Amino acid sequence: MTTTAATDLIFGLTRVVGLPAVSEKAGAPLSAEDIAQIVTEADRFCTEVLQPNALAADRAGAVYANGVVTTPPTYPAAYAKWVEGGWQSLSAPAEYGGQGLPHSLWTAMTELGMAADTSFMLGPMLTAGAIDCLMHYATPDQAARWLPRMVSGEWTGAMCLTEPNAGSDLGVLRTRAEPLPNGKYALHGQKIFITWGEHDCTDNIVYLVLARLPDAPPGSRGISLFVATKVKEDGSRNDLRCGGIEHKLGIHGSPTCVMLFEGAEAEMVGEPNRGLNAMFAMMNNARLGVGTEGVAHGAAALRLAEAYAAQRVQSGRVIAEHPDVARMLMEMRAVTLASRLLALETAICVDRHAAGDTGAQARQALLTPILKAWCTDRGVETASTGVQVHGGMGFIEETGAARILRDARIAPIYEGTNGIQAIDLLVRKVAKDGGAEMRALIEEVKRTPDARLRAAADTLAAATATVIAAQARDADAGQSVAVAYLEAAGWVLGGWMLARAAAEDPAAYGPPADFYLRRLLPRAAGRVAEIEGALAA
Amino acid sequence: MTTTAATDLIFGLTRVVGLPAVSEKAGAPLSAEDIAQIVTEADRFCTEVLQPNALAADRAGAVYANGVVTTPPTYPAAYAKWVEGGWQSLSAPAEYGGQGLPHSLWTAMTELGMAADTSFMLGPMLTAGAIDCLMHYATPDQAARWLPRMVSGEWTGAMCLTEPNAGSDLGVLRTRAEPLPNGKYALHGQKIFITWGEHDCTDNIVYLVLARLPDAPPGSRGISLFVATKVKEDGSRNDLRCGGIEHKLGIHGSPTCVMLFEGAEAEMVGEPNRGLNAMFAMMNNARLGVGTEGVAHGAAALRLAEAYAAQRVQSGRVIAEHPDVARMLMEMRAVTLASRLLALETAICVDRHAAGDTGAQARQALLTPILKAWCTDRGVETASTGVQVHGGMGFIEETGAARILRDARIAPIYEGTNGIQAIDLLVRKVAKDGGAEMRALIEEVKRTPDARLRAAADTLAAATATVIAAQARDADAGQSVAVAYLEAAGWVLGGWMLARAAAEDPAAYGPPADFYLRRLLPRAAGRVAEIEGALAA
Repeated sequence: MTTTAATDLIFGLTRVVGLPAVSEKAGAPLSAEDIAQIVTEADRFCTEVLQPNALAADRAGAVYANGVVTTPPTYPAAYAKWVEGGWQSLSAPAEYGGQGLPHSLWTAMTELGMAADTSFMLGPMLTAGAIDCLMHYATPDQAARWLPRMVSGEWTGAMCLTEPNAGSDLGVLRTRAEPLPNGKYALHGQKIFITWGEHDCTDNIVYLVLARLPDAPPGSRGISLFVATKVKEDGSRNDLRCGGIEHKLGIHGSPTCVMLFEGAEAEMVGEPNRGLNAMFAMMNNARLGVGTEGVAHGAAALRLAEAYAAQRVQSGRVIAEHPDVARMLMEMRAVTLASRLLALETAICVDRHAAGDTGAQARQALLTPILKAWCTDRGVETASTGVQVHGGMGFIEETGAARILRDARIAPIYEGTNGIQAIDLLVRKVAKDGGAEMRALIEEVKRTPDARLRAAADTLAAATATVIAAQARDADAGQSVAVAYLEAAGWVLGGWMLARAAAEDPAAYGPPADFYLRRLLPRAAGRVAEIEGALAA
Repeated sequence: MTTTAATDLIFGLTRVVGLPAVSEKAGAPLSAEDIAQIVTEADRFCTEVLQPNALAADRAGAVYANGVVTTPPTYPAAYAKWVEGGWQSLSAPAEYGGQGLPHSLWTAMTELGMAADTSFMLGPMLTAGAIDCLMHYATPDQAARWLPRMVSGEWTGAMCLTEPNAGSDLGVLRTRAEPLPNGKYALHGQKIFITWGEHDCTDNIVYLVLARLPDAPPGSRGISLFVATKVKEDGSRNDLRCGGIEHKLGIHGSPTCVMLFEGAEAEMVGEPNRGLNAMFAMMNNARLGVGTEGVAHGAAALRLAEAYAAQRVQSGRVIAEHPDVARMLMEMRAVTLASRLLALETAICVDRHAAGDTGAQARQALLTPILKAWCTDRGVETASTGVQVHGGMGFIEETGAARILRDARIAPIYEGTNGIQAIDLLVRKVAKDGGAEMRALIEEVKRTPDARLRAAADTLAAATATVIAAQARDADAGQSVAVAYLEAAGWVLGGWMLARAAAEDPAAYGPPADFYLRRLLPRAAGRVAEIEGALAA
């Protein structure tokens, strides 16, 4: 069994989630060879340009001084190569200079980049999110002025949502937008936790900012979306600046900025007071990205742990052969593979939707919170297991395993905490349609020939009815088991993806699938037992 | 429900594990009031002297320059107060100046100190381990020269076991001990991962060093134990020095040293070639200490998370009232309480043994690996949940939640990795006596009136027979499910401790016990299902 992340991604895209057929339906057919070539090139970029410097970049960290943010020394040159290679444009639309490739290929790129250097890849990921938002909400004139340079990577994008008292509850944010005589707006306020809010890799940055108009109603219905650029069109500096960066547990190379808007000139994007809707519309793709980040942390941890265990000798044999270490490595492999395939299954929904598949959007909406929460929790666990495989060396920063754990720990928090994902799944995805889409998905799972998986799917179906009823009876009781329910769904769907992979290629994917179905799938029933225990009279 | 770690410890010692009766049997009776007074004083020391400086100490870290190690600026004065308060001598024997109090009280002190500042408390914990070893193996003359000043805390102790290629497998260590004409030995070699191996809190340090005599047989039967002191009896500096300290994920204030023995003069302790036996004899208590460290990390995380959740408002109410946050807090509370009581249940075995209870040693031997692994894994999980409760702020180092997670991550690794604990439990504790002691323990668990707990105990009993048979048939197969078995045992025993606490004081301890039995106990059955799946044909 010698598959790598790249070969798994190629296999998953071509033989598990069916990208060749989807791309053909979309009118831009990609062969298995095309897919393999793109993923291989992406992997080469990440392995050659990003990965070798990631640990040193973490050690150097992003540095703030007098309003200026300096990224790790290797970042500006690496970013230039990112732009030169056209990677930012991979799945962006052709009308703005993009290559128009499927979103599932961008997901593969995201995993490889995040595994190589999470801190670096966050810049491109946030830019992709901003592009996505502007494509849907900017006027043609706005789009023409901003998008081509974002698609090329010449400018990056930053999302400015959170304020000190407005985190999960954006409705209370206070940044103001005052109309200017020229039809533009002046932004006043402070934003925090702004990823790549300031840096030295590009000359300009496009800020998407949520703020209130003077006459806006209170709460979430009074928030509008604005765009401000660091450098204005006349070449002068806009009235916004970075007030500092955070000292964080991980992703040290990624500047997490306090951004101060001190009368910054901005344009409104979309309708007044509809800013949150624009953000929500983008969230599915952003959450898919963060879920993929969880996959990447597992993959990075596995790569390091396998290499270490293959050479570290204790008691006369390499530790990879010690039964409990072998168990840890196989668990890391099985979980990472399951989450990788689940990310592709979710991403292909974006491509199926683009190809006119009417059911794809509802499926993506259902899978997204599961992917985001389940894969990022697994990413943290797998990174922690990776530390454990290294023994005492895992606790030493030079080894690199600890860095992956530190980096991984943010993914269950941002882009909506995993608790919020679970409530989103329960309330807005499952309960909203009476469980119809979830039942349809479970029926698909039950078409796999594995009896253990079918039994787990039945258990999940029963739990679905249970949590819908609980939620209807008592919203707080429902929400108190939402995480357990999401976990149960994640373990079942992970098993489903592995069973499909093993059916396609038993030699390569049978072992991790078998391990998962024997040893990890019982966690689904365990979570359902927790739900039943919690809700019992 | 307003119990604190200190009130839980007092309650646990007096009403759950029965310290008053045990101390009476030992001939040094302690009333509930005595116990409360000692724990309250210990808590005051930790809360007033250690905790306020812990975050700054982490930031400052231990610093190495030219062979000199400087601990965080507040440590020397805090250590002086530790000595002045007589805390090091708490459970040490009176003949060397100790207070001769029960080991279970030292366990309470360990939890409180580790929760306040793990890095600081590691110094005293290692000294206690060294005292323990020397009490059993040093000659009266050696003991008289070293122990009084270690018991007072005037000198610290350091355990020098690990070498670059000898971690879990100490049998291959290479440090040499050459006989000197004066009956002493000259030590030559390099030791790594030496906690508090060098520091600026005391004038002298007592090193317990494993090394080989010139004519020693290879492997673990050729290792002897030596003692070298930093300053020799004539006042001159010994030929040993710190070659550097590690850059670690956590416990930044605790110097983790490379120690170079360059002909250091040393005395042998105990019999030649029996050094590993001396170490193994001490391991139960050392592992009890590290298991308690896991409790402490959960306790520290809970304290921070409860305080944050009680004041952070989102969507119009403090987040402690959001159902999923309330679930996280209760899970943290229930798991931490269960692990705290399990630590006391293990520690009381030491006191029962000292009081002449013939069955206590076997019970301690059985509980120790479960305590060490289950409580430290729960400590990491609880610390991670604590980060999650804080949302984005949890990832920012200033909050302190991230530090607890970083500190917690070492505990599953050192003093025998948790994988090694699981194998120790399976092979040397459970399989060795055909499961007799485990069955006796399970019978005790089954005397609780809770039906869910009795069912879980039955499941554990069946799993015990399964793993003993697997181990006999195929050692590797047995070891591959050892961690799952230990986890199952831990979840059952944690529920048992909580059920006993709830029976004693339903108002205070009923809620966490009920939560645990409803929601967390199913994890035991889940782990047993994993074992069955793994071993199925």
